[in-house]
Amino acid sequence: MYDLIAFDADDTLWHNESNFLATEKRFTELLGPHHDEELVKKRLFETEMRNLQHLGYGVKGFVLSMIETAIELTDGEIRGTDIRNIMEWGNEMLRAPVQLLDGVRETIESLSGNYRLMLLSKGDLFDQESKLARSGMGEHFSAVEIVSEKNVATYRTIMARHSVEPRAFLMIGNSLKSDVLPALDAGAMAIHVPYHTTWAHEVVPDEAVAGRDFVRFESLRELPEWLRDRVQ
Amino acid sequence: MYDLIAFDADDTLWHNESNFLATEKRFTELLGPHHDEELVKKRLFETEMRNLQHLGYGVKGFVLSMIETAIELTDGEIRGTDIRNIMEWGNEMLRAPVQLLDGVRETIESLSGNYRLMLLSKGDLFDQESKLARSGMGEHFSAVEIVSEKNVATYRTIMARHSVEPRAFLMIGNSLKSDVLPALDAGAMAIHVPYHTTWAHEVVPDEAVAGRDFVRFESLRELPEWLRDRVQ
Repeated sequence: MYDLIAFDADDTLWHNESNFLATEKRFTELLGPHHDEELVKKRLFETEMRNLQHLGYGVKGFVLSMIETAIELTDGEIRGTDIRNIMEWGNEMLRAPVQLLDGVRETIESLSGNYRLMLLSKGDLFDQESKLARSGMGEHFSAVEIVSEKNVATYRTIMARHSVEPRAFLMIGNSLKSDVLPALDAGAMAIHVPYHTTWAHEVVPDEAVAGRDFVRFESLRELPEWLRDRVQ
Repeated sequence: MYDLIAFDADDTLWHNESNFLATEKRFTELLGPHHDEELVKKRLFETEMRNLQHLGYGVKGFVLSMIETAIELTDGEIRGTDIRNIMEWGNEMLRAPVQLLDGVRETIESLSGNYRLMLLSKGDLFDQESKLARSGMGEHFSAVEIVSEKNVATYRTIMARHSVEPRAFLMIGNSLKSDVLPALDAGAMAIHVPYHTTWAHEVVPDEAVAGRDFVRFESLRELPEWLRDRVQ
């Protein structure tokens, strides 16, 4: 039925957004004496969106955006030691153990013998490869593709590169915006496995998914049985 | 003769190290009131090397290393406005026009009709893709591979992925360490086109290249004729 099953990584295979939220919390506390939490979060998000076009996704860009926001919100008065702390939070994020989501290990292990599995992630190349290595799941994926953005063109390129027809390509991920909608638009099938929290940049309005034909799982554990049902 | 010709990007197709050196110069001037130039350069390089394992190559990591070094060398006294300047230098580097090296445009254009060309670069995915787009050379490459590190395993993976035999793979680049030696070790042919300056991290001792069978060009302009001679 499917020649290639591609999995998003962050918040699909392992926790990610929760790490960013925990660091954002520390950041709002650092700037607490200057500004209230909501303003700090708002300004940080604005900085991130402004920087996205030249920094891309990932921890390094996030750290640079925090430093920039801290300088702005303190009129340049922030101390070097505080900036060093912000950088250290980034280092902690980059070195943190990779925590697989519930059911990921069993599901990937059970499928890898019968299907070609791909890891298809956007973000910082170095960071994503490091996380895959630390996850211990690398051997189960026959291909790894790290891309700078996931849009329709990206999915078409990936399918062509791996010689797979759109109808034989299955994309699985937590983001409607990056994993589900562009894969559907490229003619592939997609499964949405929501994470408990979604980065504001990835949120799509309900209208965007109305009438679209895709499947939603609560957990990746549902995948093997769903695949078995499709084969019969 | 060659089924696939792969080109390194930074300092092979376009200027790169010179931009880093220009920014390093501004950095030593900024810290001039505190420390002499040689010490600043030495400490910055040490910070970069320490950070390489979790930040990888590229401008974002370089900016973070400059900030870290500046905080260290001023005992945390550096001002927010100076850190903002350092970040702005990084933004300038990321947005700077891509300057092709002499002969690159003509050489690539003349070969792309007769050979499969690949861009094979290490570094920050987002930054490299952006530079390729800005260079206007993207259409001439049938494949683009951005990798986090170029070693023997990388070359083997790339050749396997593109179904090319080692003896039919030609790698061209300015770095003996990343482009020439590991490609040779993987059984491919390599051409060294030195750039006028080499990042200390990429320097290899003379002994490492003694007796190795590769070609050296002064300019990429020499490539078409070299290829013609090999066909005959």
